[in-house]
Amino acid sequence: MIERDVKIHMERALQLANKGWGKTHPNPMVGALVFDQGVVRGEGYHKQVGASHAEINALSQLTGKLSSDATLFVTLEPCSTHGQTPPCIDAIIRSGIKRVVVGAIDPNPKHRGRGLDILRKARIEVIEGILSRECEDLNLLFNFWIKRRSPLIAGKIAMTIDGRLATRSGDSKWITNLQSRMDVMKWRRLFPAIAVGANTVLTDNPSLTSRMDNREIWCPIRIIIDPKLRTVNSKLCKVYNDEYMKRTVIVVSKDFNTKEKRKLLDPSIDLWKIATSHDGVEWDAFRRKCIEKNIFGVFFEGGAKTINSLINSRELNYLFSYRAPKLLGDPEAYSVFTEYNPERINSAITLGQVQHATFGDDELMRGYIKYPNKGRQ
Amino acid sequence: MIERDVKIHMERALQLANKGWGKTHPNPMVGALVFDQGVVRGEGYHKQVGASHAEINALSQLTGKLSSDATLFVTLEPCSTHGQTPPCIDAIIRSGIKRVVVGAIDPNPKHRGRGLDILRKARIEVIEGILSRECEDLNLLFNFWIKRRSPLIAGKIAMTIDGRLATRSGDSKWITNLQSRMDVMKWRRLFPAIAVGANTVLTDNPSLTSRMDNREIWCPIRIIIDPKLRTVNSKLCKVYNDEYMKRTVIVVSKDFNTKEKRKLLDPSIDLWKIATSHDGVEWDAFRRKCIEKNIFGVFFEGGAKTINSLINSRELNYLFSYRAPKLLGDPEAYSVFTEYNPERINSAITLGQVQHATFGDDELMRGYIKYPNKGRQ
Repeated sequence: MIERDVKIHMERALQLANKGWGKTHPNPMVGALVFDQGVVRGEGYHKQVGASHAEINALSQLTGKLSSDATLFVTLEPCSTHGQTPPCIDAIIRSGIKRVVVGAIDPNPKHRGRGLDILRKARIEVIEGILSRECEDLNLLFNFWIKRRSPLIAGKIAMTIDGRLATRSGDSKWITNLQSRMDVMKWRRLFPAIAVGANTVLTDNPSLTSRMDNREIWCPIRIIIDPKLRTVNSKLCKVYNDEYMKRTVIVVSKDFNTKEKRKLLDPSIDLWKIATSHDGVEWDAFRRKCIEKNIFGVFFEGGAKTINSLINSRELNYLFSYRAPKLLGDPEAYSVFTEYNPERINSAITLGQVQHATFGDDELMRGYIKYPNKGRQ
Repeated sequence: MIERDVKIHMERALQLANKGWGKTHPNPMVGALVFDQGVVRGEGYHKQVGASHAEINALSQLTGKLSSDATLFVTLEPCSTHGQTPPCIDAIIRSGIKRVVVGAIDPNPKHRGRGLDILRKARIEVIEGILSRECEDLNLLFNFWIKRRSPLIAGKIAMTIDGRLATRSGDSKWITNLQSRMDVMKWRRLFPAIAVGANTVLTDNPSLTSRMDNREIWCPIRIIIDPKLRTVNSKLCKVYNDEYMKRTVIVVSKDFNTKEKRKLLDPSIDLWKIATSHDGVEWDAFRRKCIEKNIFGVFFEGGAKTINSLINSRELNYLFSYRAPKLLGDPEAYSVFTEYNPERINSAITLGQVQHATFGDDELMRGYIKYPNKGRQ
């Protein structure tokens, strides 16, 4: 098989994996296919937690005898341990497959590479690292959870070329184009929870649902950061009144007496009482609450104050930065303002494992946030 | 011929055109090839002004008879007028070519489409619009010059995610990575002239030459914006002392008495005396000077003050905005600051004909600047 074909099949496996977008938590998305003598003989993906794995779904479609050239393409290293399903490694060996091409390696340090070792011992040829960056990127929530046992706290900002989130008067509708905003809908579908600050609710009254073409509306867990319950006086807030209101959570200050205001809310709406300081929520406590609730990732959509506060407490793990070909050139316009204020460029916050995309004239840069060492300016 | 092959041949023609990068002013870069019965039978590009055109170079390689399927691919509409060379249209008709595939249409409103009409009348099939955006983009200086009879004044900024050009202490080395900086070398090779402000000379002492892998060092015209000749006291400035110093120009204020300071400079260095206001150079006068000197494009590399001044006077035509995955989050850090300060997003400056590129983790967004209507905020 020539290299180009190997990539084409892995791209197809990635496409298959993507069919599980947002549905596999806490499992990863995985796609697999079997290619033998010029023909794709089986395809599969992991549909949801509890369902069979991608490799099993692909292998189950095989009929007749495989040639010695039969190759399994899989976006993630096959599992070697018993989870809710038996290990895929056993099924692969039993199937008679003679070659396995793998995208990403299992991010779990305990299992990393183990599945591939077992395959090699069973005299199956293993080819690693095909589109590995893309295959890893597909499971950014899963990878983080497995390695850190903590939710990926991500922030979205939509900016002008000169890094402005809104004009001096607060206008931000719209900096980015429709295609960029549709991409945000995709991430709302992936992250189990979306969060916004109270000001965003009061100003924009968002529904925080994911509305994508040709798909049902999806409502993630909607977390409103509102230590003093300023938003609940408004009878009109969608997140407290629409058909998904039982998916709404409000983060309130531990010290705040919620008794009176609670009555204004539907009883199905959850309140998380979390410690706050003068600066806002204590984000490490918020993170622990997410772990307790098995929430594997939170997508913060603003506002600027909330994102800044998360960066200042070093609790923002990932940044989505959309950029439109617009320029405000105004020092009074809103931007990301933190407390770092470095003197040197090499003391800046940076992003790692950066991914780029374009949406019409807009572009997206995203990656894991790396904070500078403390005390190093 | 299937669509994919048409694109592949036009991509090759673009590659050929690129061989003339920076060498064809005031002519456009053009590439051409003849494809007949599965074989490329001739390739050519325009090497420099006065040399023969790309189509002629490709046709001159033909030997033997062409089939009725012979196709000429050319990145720009062939010329129909006598310039320094006879019209290419005549040579194409004479050659027996039966089909012409064209990328960009002649930007000159007087000739636009005329060459293609003549070809059609000569019963040659014409296919337009193949990779037209890429073919147009290749000649951004030429197109602007032809339409506006004015140099393309372009500005380069290298920024963090939050739009900062330097830290509060002025550190900017380096915001962007080596690959981005190598891309800048490419643009220095394209633009006939590079310009910087006096502060950039005093702080960075740049050589402003283009240093690309496997190529000779190239020195564009180097324009130093220094109304009061603050830089010439420094004996160490490369631009006034290196082997290319006769390619250095200083823009000084019309009102400034240069007599004493002139003595410090090599006589080969040119001074342009241009009107200034409290805000700096009068850029429309600068533009007229460039036209007088047949300079078809100026690439401003900074500093921030010079770029801001160009934007404020609406004289910056094009923006190159490099962006690195770094975040300063500091309101005191340098940025693009103009006098627009719009209240609404739809009063922002925008870019048109946007192009994107990535360089490792960095990205470039570039395009023609569109200023908002005056008085509309």
